[in-house]
Amino acid sequence: MSGNRIVVYKGPGKVAVETIDYPKLEVPAEVASAMGMSRKADHGVILKCVSTNICGSDQHMVRGRTTAPIGQTLGHEITGEVVEKGSDVQFLEIGDLCTVPFNIACGRCRNCREQATGVCLNVNPARAGSAYGYVDMGGWLGGQADYVMVPFADFNLLKFPDRDAALAKIRDLTMLSDIFPTGYHGAKTAGVTTGSTVYVAGAGPVGLAAAYSAQLLGAAVVIVGDLNAERLKQAESFGCETVDVGADAALEDQIAEILGTNEVDCAVDAVGFEASGHGHQAGEQPAAVLNSIMSLTRAGGALGIPGLYVTGDPGAGDDDAKEGTLKVRLGLGWAKSHSFFTGQCPVLKYNRGLMMSILHDKAHIADAVNATVITLDDAPRGYAEFDSGVAQKFVLDPHGMVPAG
Amino acid sequence: MSGNRIVVYKGPGKVAVETIDYPKLEVPAEVASAMGMSRKADHGVILKCVSTNICGSDQHMVRGRTTAPIGQTLGHEITGEVVEKGSDVQFLEIGDLCTVPFNIACGRCRNCREQATGVCLNVNPARAGSAYGYVDMGGWLGGQADYVMVPFADFNLLKFPDRDAALAKIRDLTMLSDIFPTGYHGAKTAGVTTGSTVYVAGAGPVGLAAAYSAQLLGAAVVIVGDLNAERLKQAESFGCETVDVGADAALEDQIAEILGTNEVDCAVDAVGFEASGHGHQAGEQPAAVLNSIMSLTRAGGALGIPGLYVTGDPGAGDDDAKEGTLKVRLGLGWAKSHSFFTGQCPVLKYNRGLMMSILHDKAHIADAVNATVITLDDAPRGYAEFDSGVAQKFVLDPHGMVPAG
Amino acid sequence: MSGNRIVVYKGPGKVAVETIDYPKLEVPAEVASAMGMSRKADHGVILKCVSTNICGSDQHMVRGRTTAPIGQTLGHEITGEVVEKGSDVQFLEIGDLCTVPFNIACGRCRNCREQATGVCLNVNPARAGSAYGYVDMGGWLGGQADYVMVPFADFNLLKFPDRDAALAKIRDLTMLSDIFPTGYHGAKTAGVTTGSTVYVAGAGPVGLAAAYSAQLLGAAVVIVGDLNAERLKQAESFGCETVDVGADAALEDQIAEILGTNEVDCAVDAVGFEASGHGHQAGEQPAAVLNSIMSLTRAGGALGIPGLYVTGDPGAGDDDAKEGTLKVRLGLGWAKSHSFFTGQCPVLKYNRGLMMSILHDKAHIADAVNATVITLDDAPRGYAEFDSGVAQKFVLDPHGMVPAG
Amino acid sequence: MSGNRIVVYKGPGKVAVETIDYPKLEVPAEVASAMGMSRKADHGVILKCVSTNICGSDQHMVRGRTTAPIGQTLGHEITGEVVEKGSDVQFLEIGDLCTVPFNIACGRCRNCREQATGVCLNVNPARAGSAYGYVDMGGWLGGQADYVMVPFADFNLLKFPDRDAALAKIRDLTMLSDIFPTGYHGAKTAGVTTGSTVYVAGAGPVGLAAAYSAQLLGAAVVIVGDLNAERLKQAESFGCETVDVGADAALEDQIAEILGTNEVDCAVDAVGFEASGHGHQAGEQPAAVLNSIMSLTRAGGALGIPGLYVTGDPGAGDDDAKEGTLKVRLGLGWAKSHSFFTGQCPVLKYNRGLMMSILHDKAHIADAVNATVITLDDAPRGYAEFDSGVAQKFVLDPHGMVPAG
Repeated sequence: MSGNRIVVYKGPGKVAVETIDYPKLEVPAEVASAMGMSRKADHGVILKCVSTNICGSDQHMVRGRTTAPIGQTLGHEITGEVVEKGSDVQFLEIGDLCTVPFNIACGRCRNCREQATGVCLNVNPARAGSAYGYVDMGGWLGGQADYVMVPFADFNLLKFPDRDAALAKIRDLTMLSDIFPTGYHGAKTAGVTTGSTVYVAGAGPVGLAAAYSAQLLGAAVVIVGDLNAERLKQAESFGCETVDVGADAALEDQIAEILGTNEVDCAVDAVGFEASGHGHQAGEQPAAVLNSIMSLTRAGGALGIPGLYVTGDPGAGDDDAKEGTLKVRLGLGWAKSHSFFTGQCPVLKYNRGLMMSILHDKAHIADAVNATVITLDDAPRGYAEFDSGVAQKFVLDPHGMVPAG
Repeated sequence: MSGNRIVVYKGPGKVAVETIDYPKLEVPAEVASAMGMSRKADHGVILKCVSTNICGSDQHMVRGRTTAPIGQTLGHEITGEVVEKGSDVQFLEIGDLCTVPFNIACGRCRNCREQATGVCLNVNPARAGSAYGYVDMGGWLGGQADYVMVPFADFNLLKFPDRDAALAKIRDLTMLSDIFPTGYHGAKTAGVTTGSTVYVAGAGPVGLAAAYSAQLLGAAVVIVGDLNAERLKQAESFGCETVDVGADAALEDQIAEILGTNEVDCAVDAVGFEASGHGHQAGEQPAAVLNSIMSLTRAGGALGIPGLYVTGDPGAGDDDAKEGTLKVRLGLGWAKSHSFFTGQCPVLKYNRGLMMSILHDKAHIADAVNATVITLDDAPRGYAEFDSGVAQKFVLDPHGMVPAG
Repeated sequence: MSGNRIVVYKGPGKVAVETIDYPKLEVPAEVASAMGMSRKADHGVILKCVSTNICGSDQHMVRGRTTAPIGQTLGHEITGEVVEKGSDVQFLEIGDLCTVPFNIACGRCRNCREQATGVCLNVNPARAGSAYGYVDMGGWLGGQADYVMVPFADFNLLKFPDRDAALAKIRDLTMLSDIFPTGYHGAKTAGVTTGSTVYVAGAGPVGLAAAYSAQLLGAAVVIVGDLNAERLKQAESFGCETVDVGADAALEDQIAEILGTNEVDCAVDAVGFEASGHGHQAGEQPAAVLNSIMSLTRAGGALGIPGLYVTGDPGAGDDDAKEGTLKVRLGLGWAKSHSFFTGQCPVLKYNRGLMMSILHDKAHIADAVNATVITLDDAPRGYAEFDSGVAQKFVLDPHGMVPAG
Repeated sequence: MSGNRIVVYKGPGKVAVETIDYPKLEVPAEVASAMGMSRKADHGVILKCVSTNICGSDQHMVRGRTTAPIGQTLGHEITGEVVEKGSDVQFLEIGDLCTVPFNIACGRCRNCREQATGVCLNVNPARAGSAYGYVDMGGWLGGQADYVMVPFADFNLLKFPDRDAALAKIRDLTMLSDIFPTGYHGAKTAGVTTGSTVYVAGAGPVGLAAAYSAQLLGAAVVIVGDLNAERLKQAESFGCETVDVGADAALEDQIAEILGTNEVDCAVDAVGFEASGHGHQAGEQPAAVLNSIMSLTRAGGALGIPGLYVTGDPGAGDDDAKEGTLKVRLGLGWAKSHSFFTGQCPVLKYNRGLMMSILHDKAHIADAVNATVITLDDAPRGYAEFDSGVAQKFVLDPHGMVPAG
């Protein structure tokens, strides 16, 4: 246990696997001092990372669209085994296999008490909410690694009831750390329920997870839109309808052809601020998706917005976008009495139910998002391929513990 | 009953009281033909207007900020007495005194069945939702008049249980047709509950009603912001804290001085698209209020947006605003996991409870908004004074039935 | 159109098909006079019954467990075609194919406005709520008939968007009038959601519909309990686990064998007051099911109780049960912080979504409840077989319009 | 700090103040071993009790209506100052003044994560949920004492923002530990909102708190029923209507005289299992209150049941009641589609908002329940007087820190 391999950002377009110190049961110094916590984390555990996925929001950093410094450690989608625990970890044992919500939460503040773990008040000096391995989030180390420290472990970790059963389904369970709950949150806040018609903008992993979740929630029809034919095909593989956002036909008309009406009940924005305008050559238009789903959603409907919108985007095309200000057709949304739900998914609100669905063979999310297991050392290749737009969700397997699919 | 006095829009800045035909139990021809309804309104009643208020959204038309044609009849805040009823009005009697929700609703479509009467699907060929005396709403006649036709009366009308008790409180009850529920809806969707701290942007009648409603909902502290000192004083008259949006001190700092923290739990935008920037000389900035309440509201909080945002604003300063597109700091809202609730208030969802509060002496909304009763013929003066920014809510009294206050 | 065949109660254990007058657009005299309505139903339609099912609650009458008089017409599960309409029916056309919620509702009272159509205040002089063809419900004629009058049709009826598509799935759609929404309501109020473990007491048609709905709502595991092996087999046919309530093994132990824990997240009582005690020879114990699901449901869980409990049961074994008073282990429920949801399902709240699920091939309720189509004239046989405990749901087909399954 | 005075049960009708060891940062041995926790409570604090109230549920024990052994320590309504803290208490400081929810909760189990702290799974070997100083709750020491140990302190304790402001309102704030949230929970689950009419059964401290909370929630009319004239007078002191349950006039008729209708929108059972039948000589009838509020509550309404029902009542009049089985008129509730909400109030869900209402001078609960401050040594007198039915809520002041009222 002398070292810890970990994926690190090395500048725009570049990541590397480096070796750093084995993690300690300590919170980051900047968090401890700003929040008045003890440095020593009696509440924490060290996890051996069983699986840890590459996420689209990692890509924002790697593409150079954030202020992440070179050397930033990466990885917030973690599933692991408890190998060490602090003195105040009461309800977990060494050897327990657990899923880790990507949002770090204290379990003790007002927001955590109200299930709003995505905006915990105690773990990030910069703002509410935090995550492992992310810029401006308090300096918690990333989990695309051999080992990772998880604070407030009794609160944050969800233990799998049976180790063997869990390992057998680890390709599905690994999605509980972020994209499955995040997609589900998008669909849920959009009001998807039995019989809904749903439009999901974006067929990346979160979009696919939102579409899959919409089906779990009972949607009658789920339509996924993207520019990427391969990803649309992936959506079709589990029963979604699809529309090509780059096609000449207007989106409304494509929807109408499927549904017989040009509006859906519910819509999910699984794209976020790196949106493109309508048409294959339109280029980046950060409000394009949001404005489009307002026109596609029925009056009285709701919009789930799990796609990330940032407060600072140094690489944006104009000054407004640089500070996260977008041209939103608010008048349209108002005329239709729309509700809008934004922000990080509070994973802990959903992961238990989704775990049960996986364990009892009701949810097959790994197939839906095309989970592809690679070694930790192969992470740079995974980042590159993911960035190229392949319809795959890369799962890193640091210790060779993931059974063949 | 040979004629019907009614307030009519006569061009930017001008209204007049004219006499038109006594109303018939008929739906507008354009609505009947577009929606496949019978012209004859067996479901309708003729109301003698007991009180009928001037609304801020009337002002948008009168200021020339909409496409309202000259001759547009006005008035959607109506309280009246049933004087004639169609053959299928089953649960109302001649002589019943009733409040009329400003949103016209069929009571029979999917949205009405789900309490979303603000977006009824059957009463407006142009879009979901309608109102009396308003541009692009299907041509229903206004209610700033002696008499008005109300369709689907059993569904739309809320009868006051006791006529005398109602007349004695008519200055309060007249606010049930729009601003009291609208303000309440703003506060409710913003999540105001026992112990909340609340910021209300705008101290016009809707803002005051939102502030008053926040108190009814149990807010610990309600802070109202405006540029208009007289209106702020009105807010103070019923126990609100106030901040001068035009002052040099930043809004956050003013809030912090009151609360000891620069964020509130809940915020209400009671201004809408005619917003001004921060500071007295800032001029119109349509997204100024929305952006400001995002920065003032705590992470995880909700924003109630009863203030009107339009899809077309021919008088706006730039092309984006002309089509209702605003520069919204969405990145900020997203980082704080905000929820946004827009649209017309579905009055019928709230008016019964608010009526009970008035009748049982728990709510005194007329005083809160400074109800000022004038004659129907005085309507032009009321419009002019209201437009000048006085802290008054004008109530027209066509038949001299409103008792002295 | 000189007559109307209809199923009539002829005394304990007996029903017959008789011919009465063709229905009129009139509300029952007792309802009109007590409620102050006009006798003439401008709001009503005459439906040609396309399918109309026999319900377990009809059985209560036919078994002589109610005060239903001889001559009581039967049938409240109706799907039909509009063949005549009143002058104030605005949004339905002759020829429209519609599902009829079993609860008759005015669409104009406080409860209907709030989606509580199961307790409409205007259609039953005896109490809140009504139904077609039922004792003490205001005298509305039954719908196990060639034709039936439906009042307030624009509000009550849900039209199928496409006639041919609907006829092709009529065996499923016919379940929208009662048992599918009723089962769904039971599961929904019990809190069933993604990943829940669920126990459904009773494998009659409502129990099977509740179990099927729990699956639609995303349950991880659905366990159905009954004494009737054939019905349990039916539950297994669509993926439920089952427990034999008459077996020697305690229910908790049977549950534990399936789940690894002796408690479920959510429970549904789909039995009601004619419950038997645990064990095959236990005899009738009206609170047996309710008490059993309290002990099976986890602390903090909810109990959906669509099974009927009555205020008067003249055939009950003791005086308390005769007036609907049962020995409930309330202390146990209280210790576990249980919530209890009782009453008629407000069908209109759910039927649209469930219809969409059927039309888009997501829900196959007819197979789940083993829909069995017979002629209207065969109704007496259907009643007898249903009462014998077969695992079938009988659908009457008065006009030979139901396609072969 | 050599000892700790504490109130102890000494047999039916008797309590005494005894001195035991100063508390340690340890969980009870039986809890630690059964739950697999460490005995050492790094998560705990020692509080100096600033105020600690006598509760009606203490009376159940003292009257001998439970299996509490002689020597049982008492007190679960605690407000105190942190005087010692464990190594994993991160967000509290020595000297902080805090309110303690009576429900002990771990903050780390499924139920706590979902805000259901009343049924925490980790603190009581006997069942879900626990409390300080109560029989069959895991052996946590009572807080009617000089000092008390509070486990999982960061999660359980709510700190008052300003010490001096808090001390000045300590008579109100002391009610946050139990009866104010408990009454509020009763009113909230009963569906009380703006304009509701409400009936509260029982004018003891919880009933008064429920009535007061109903007012905070915006009720139009609150009616309180009891047999005790003094307590009814107390309810009148803050604006409630009252009915004498022992009067000859039927309860419905008394309600009708006040409201003009014999039903209310919402009802709260603040009595529980020691209920008396209607009439002053009726004697104990454990289901009397529950059955009565079913008949008083409108169809579609909800019943909040904070009044305690127990699983074992050795002192009950009959065998059914001895095991917590009551004769409930379930048929009536079902016919009215009632919902029933039972169980311990999850205090942490409400105490923050109620604290804000107190600190900002919106809620004056101490006056409503007639808080009466006495010394710790006077506890036996307080118990005796409370049991005699006085309209007072006794607050013990162990250290003379409560300012004169």
